[in-house]
Amino acid sequence: MTAAVPTPPPVQPPVPTPSEQVTALAEALNSGTMQTVRKMLRALHPAEVAQLLESLPRAQRFIVWGMLDHEHDGEVLLEVGDEVRVSLIGEMDEDALVSATEGLDIDDMADLLADLPEAVSSQILNDMDQQYRSRLEAVLTYDEDTAGGLMDTSVITVRADVTLEVVLRYLRRHESIPSHTDVLMVVDRFEHYRGVLPITALLLHDPDTLVGEVMESDRPPIPADMPDGAVAAVFEDRDLVSAAVVDENNLLLGRITVDDVVDVIRDEGVEALHSYVGLSEDEDLFDSVLSASRRRAVWLGVNLITAFIAAAAIGLFQDTLERVVALAVLMPIVASMGGIAGSQTLILVIRGMALGQVSSQNVRALLLKELGVGLVNSLVWCGVVALVAGLWFDTWMIGAVIALALIANMVFAALTGVVLPPTLRRLNIDPALAGGVLLTTVTDVVGFVAFLGLGTALLL
Amino acid sequence: MTAAVPTPPPVQPPVPTPSEQVTALAEALNSGTMQTVRKMLRALHPAEVAQLLESLPRAQRFIVWGMLDHEHDGEVLLEVGDEVRVSLIGEMDEDALVSATEGLDIDDMADLLADLPEAVSSQILNDMDQQYRSRLEAVLTYDEDTAGGLMDTSVITVRADVTLEVVLRYLRRHESIPSHTDVLMVVDRFEHYRGVLPITALLLHDPDTLVGEVMESDRPPIPADMPDGAVAAVFEDRDLVSAAVVDENNLLLGRITVDDVVDVIRDEGVEALHSYVGLSEDEDLFDSVLSASRRRAVWLGVNLITAFIAAAAIGLFQDTLERVVALAVLMPIVASMGGIAGSQTLILVIRGMALGQVSSQNVRALLLKELGVGLVNSLVWCGVVALVAGLWFDTWMIGAVIALALIANMVFAALTGVVLPPTLRRLNIDPALAGGVLLTTVTDVVGFVAFLGLGTALLL
Repeated sequence: MTAAVPTPPPVQPPVPTPSEQVTALAEALNSGTMQTVRKMLRALHPAEVAQLLESLPRAQRFIVWGMLDHEHDGEVLLEVGDEVRVSLIGEMDEDALVSATEGLDIDDMADLLADLPEAVSSQILNDMDQQYRSRLEAVLTYDEDTAGGLMDTSVITVRADVTLEVVLRYLRRHESIPSHTDVLMVVDRFEHYRGVLPITALLLHDPDTLVGEVMESDRPPIPADMPDGAVAAVFEDRDLVSAAVVDENNLLLGRITVDDVVDVIRDEGVEALHSYVGLSEDEDLFDSVLSASRRRAVWLGVNLITAFIAAAAIGLFQDTLERVVALAVLMPIVASMGGIAGSQTLILVIRGMALGQVSSQNVRALLLKELGVGLVNSLVWCGVVALVAGLWFDTWMIGAVIALALIANMVFAALTGVVLPPTLRRLNIDPALAGGVLLTTVTDVVGFVAFLGLGTALLL
Repeated sequence: MTAAVPTPPPVQPPVPTPSEQVTALAEALNSGTMQTVRKMLRALHPAEVAQLLESLPRAQRFIVWGMLDHEHDGEVLLEVGDEVRVSLIGEMDEDALVSATEGLDIDDMADLLADLPEAVSSQILNDMDQQYRSRLEAVLTYDEDTAGGLMDTSVITVRADVTLEVVLRYLRRHESIPSHTDVLMVVDRFEHYRGVLPITALLLHDPDTLVGEVMESDRPPIPADMPDGAVAAVFEDRDLVSAAVVDENNLLLGRITVDDVVDVIRDEGVEALHSYVGLSEDEDLFDSVLSASRRRAVWLGVNLITAFIAAAAIGLFQDTLERVVALAVLMPIVASMGGIAGSQTLILVIRGMALGQVSSQNVRALLLKELGVGLVNSLVWCGVVALVAGLWFDTWMIGAVIALALIANMVFAALTGVVLPPTLRRLNIDPALAGGVLLTTVTDVVGFVAFLGLGTALLL
């Protein structure tokens, strides 16, 4: 059978990746064709505008911010990081800020309100209608990092004792349905959460069916005080699009949608690496020099203290160093290998704790395994180190000293890497923030003392 | 008006956080009450079983794996990390593996197939029905880390020229609708993608409406070869639940759903921190000692080379060190402060590049800012360092030497932090993987040479 020649398909341009758009726009900005810039800006989503603003040096950032039609100001402010948001808000007058918040969802309004100047936020609160305001106040009573702070209060609720036909008629009275509505929430007459009615059930079942017959009552609700990280884990484990949020009496407060959960997961990922080197999660790429310096100065100061502690450890062995200068040359190797091996263990344990995989039940087994890994790898590498050191300084004894010190430091590093995070957690210190600095202090001190101590004992 | 006493609300137990469940189960396991363990296991979702298995030492892991009813083996295998999956597959016989893959979605099957022994995977491929197999082969032609590798081929498609009534009747013939179906895909008669029909449109509009009248044609499809990180950015920016995947001719191949995107974002976050210390993304907490050692040995070897380079830099100044032992004591301070300052800049730039915020257009502005931050913070701290060093060794000259070296190293560290990631990217080396090690090599060498060189010039 010969096929008829098909009409040529209307190829739709695939979505450009965000960075391509931003690069093109930044080029247009630099070449100064404002007409082009304006045209490109109009084609961008608020999230893309946000990304563009974040990647512009401050002077250009404020120029572009001024060129935007201000219809989506609120959405853009919600998408940028905290620091960039504050820089943009600083450039806006009161009227612009008030109008930027118009029409926002409750959860978004709650996020934004915290960053606005006092005068503006109280004006906005005054202008609000009563219902919106009382809902907003409900969200504001919860910490930003909990389910209550994440939730949106625009929820469609239905009763279990009505038919799908009634629900369908009720929905048709809406002009639109809130985005990410994959389920309607089923409540009793006191607004207690009973379960969910999937939208698809409305399509698949006979309209005469009762909601109670096809609702899913095995979907537990999320308590409003659950930390946002745990909420994210629930969404990941159960592949949810939305979930009900309830108070301690099972009263339905609102719902959380996956788009907000995605942001939580992204922020957790960025935060993990940032806090490991003492950066804040929301660091503005183009913060002012003084403000960025101030933020990072504290971390450098902490590191300076630990560096002096390591130096003091070396200072104990000045006599030895004066007589065997080779020890001074080689000592960073022992400290550095311990630091690397310990960091690997540390990161593994911190991640395991964050995912709920490390507990008092298995920390012992984990310690044994990591000590084993530290021992095996120190044995593997100490031979190489001893050989190179022995050849370099033409004496095998220094090879023996560095090999023994390396084994001691790498095994102690494994011990520290396993024990430190749970200990810090018990002291209410974030292991992801303080763990790395403390660990390298330990591996520096142990490395220097082991190496120089053994050198004093065996070489003098 | 006195209210009638309401009936007491049926309080539903809120969802326990994953780690609480896992801890309770691990306790039951350790106390040896197998009856309890079996009961608890039955109450867990596959994702929770996966988490439990990941947090158990290997011996216990295999015991629990044997106790599970094997209905959800496939789902559990998909949820655990790569390394844990391989350990579990190693414990299963051929029949168990074949039945574990029964009923899997195409995208999941593609993921699992790669980890199965040759004999098993060819048997599974042979037993497949023709349609499923050709769809699977379509997915397998794409790299796992692209949109094509992420996509599922179970898509409900409709034509633009039918009425909603026809669509509704067509849907009612299904027993269920694939999860995360927020939109139906609209295609022409050659299966070219034309847009989406939101499920809610079926509810809100008159059944006589044509699909073409209410479909959304402004949702660009995702090309099958788009990298998964860019797919995640599109989902984040546009708050999508699902999106169409097309080939270069706009032919609809499948769809990507947000639950898979969530996993991509989570993995990216874990990977960022893990690769910074040379761990693989899927590191098994309870890998065997030998296997874990082998994985980490390479990274330690790379670090050893860089440590010897730093030692060689120190070796250039042996005469100086013999005469001024204070330099040996203080030299780690200069190297360490440069390493910390440089790492902060490096992480900021790497993240900026990953988010598409750093480009050739703004790297110059970024460099100037980071050089400024490096200069300001080195000026802030060099005074403190000089004071302590001067008091400690009772000579102000050594304070001047360490202050100057600190400024030089911190400014050079900022330069390296900005320039290194784009350079590595151009050489096709992952900056997140190699950046940290290379940066500290630079800051060690520059720190030691600057400090000992200045010491040689000014103190001898």
